[in-house]
Amino acid sequence: MSTSPVILDETLAVVLLSGGLDSMVAGGLAREAGDRLVALTIDYGQRHRIEIEAARRVAAALDVERHIELPIDLSAFGGSSLTQLDLAVRKDGVEEGIPNTYVPGRNIVFLALTLSLAEASGARRIYIGVNSLDYSGYPDCRPDFIAAFQHMAALGTKSGVEGRGVRICAPLQYMTKADIAKEAARLGLDAGMSWSCYDPTPEGLHCGHCDSCRLRSKGFEEAGLADPTRYAARS
Amino acid sequence: MSTSPVILDETLAVVLLSGGLDSMVAGGLAREAGDRLVALTIDYGQRHRIEIEAARRVAAALDVERHIELPIDLSAFGGSSLTQLDLAVRKDGVEEGIPNTYVPGRNIVFLALTLSLAEASGARRIYIGVNSLDYSGYPDCRPDFIAAFQHMAALGTKSGVEGRGVRICAPLQYMTKADIAKEAARLGLDAGMSWSCYDPTPEGLHCGHCDSCRLRSKGFEEAGLADPTRYAARS
Repeated sequence: MSTSPVILDETLAVVLLSGGLDSMVAGGLAREAGDRLVALTIDYGQRHRIEIEAARRVAAALDVERHIELPIDLSAFGGSSLTQLDLAVRKDGVEEGIPNTYVPGRNIVFLALTLSLAEASGARRIYIGVNSLDYSGYPDCRPDFIAAFQHMAALGTKSGVEGRGVRICAPLQYMTKADIAKEAARLGLDAGMSWSCYDPTPEGLHCGHCDSCRLRSKGFEEAGLADPTRYAARS
Repeated sequence: MSTSPVILDETLAVVLLSGGLDSMVAGGLAREAGDRLVALTIDYGQRHRIEIEAARRVAAALDVERHIELPIDLSAFGGSSLTQLDLAVRKDGVEEGIPNTYVPGRNIVFLALTLSLAEASGARRIYIGVNSLDYSGYPDCRPDFIAAFQHMAALGTKSGVEGRGVRICAPLQYMTKADIAKEAARLGLDAGMSWSCYDPTPEGLHCGHCDSCRLRSKGFEEAGLADPTRYAARS
């Protein structure tokens, strides 16, 4: 009873599944590579909680072995328009710099939780859909951040110290949104299952104007693919 | 409405407060250095949830401006005797290697949350009571891990990228438990407020036998200080 109950499982991976297009494709690529999946979705008080329903659809399509939805109330911390309803999500175009939808330390918290679950499950890999080309400028999506997180994880976990650490896979890192839309089609994953909008309409449509909607829409257009998304009527 | 509402506060720090002796002293040193404090306590499904009551006592003694108790159910992940009641906490002495009380990625998750709160609050420093001398051998308490986390945080946060990042302070890193007990006394903080035991008795006493109790007891003894802790009768 005194040793750890964790048994390593060489073909098991944990995918951080937001319900968005990117994490859906990251999960699909993990499946294509032969990994079995545990999915983790974080319910963090985001204004677009509708994405959690999308995550459930995607998890089913990816045939995951287990889907954990973990509530953690980051709105108690404040500091972002995604968790503070009194702060507006910007709608006038993808701007330079880091927008107010940035949630302080979000991907650091999410990767830390995914790492914890992976280590506890005996999984060898984490899949995350971060992307540093068509993105909102968040610092926690960039390759040097992911590399630094990997290094920190190797030093700060039992599995890392014992030389059987968890590897962080970010297969979308250098893809454009058009590449990602094409990958979804190639993998046979219906992009209409996924959710991107930060500020859904009361009717449950994509707003069509936030950064995330603009990047999504542009991706399908540039890929020459039909966009299955239901956007609110554009002004 | 499109810019971040976060205003930097040069004398504000966030202390990760477990309710234990170490984080109490870390918070006391922050106060002595002139920082005002926000305290963060994580209710993670630990079997020794009684430590949260201790954290409240300590937060009051440190005169913190705000105390956030954040629930996050790491027991859903498993993998540790601290969160799985069917796995026994070892009681036969501080062993070599990493014990089964290790919670996968715990300090990574906790530091990530503390960082998120610090960034959202405009705080400039984080205080954490990690210690790498009289400790249980957890990899996420060691100096090279803390340095790697600091590096990752600088790259992965808005504040870090903008050159006004959050600094991680681990003032107990090279102290013995005896040093820490003496520091508590010097700072006028009653060590009897704090809680260390991993496996409390049904009567709410320290068990006296787990790693954490052994290290605590040895600390007071080596410091030549009276140990205010109420231990269960030792066998």
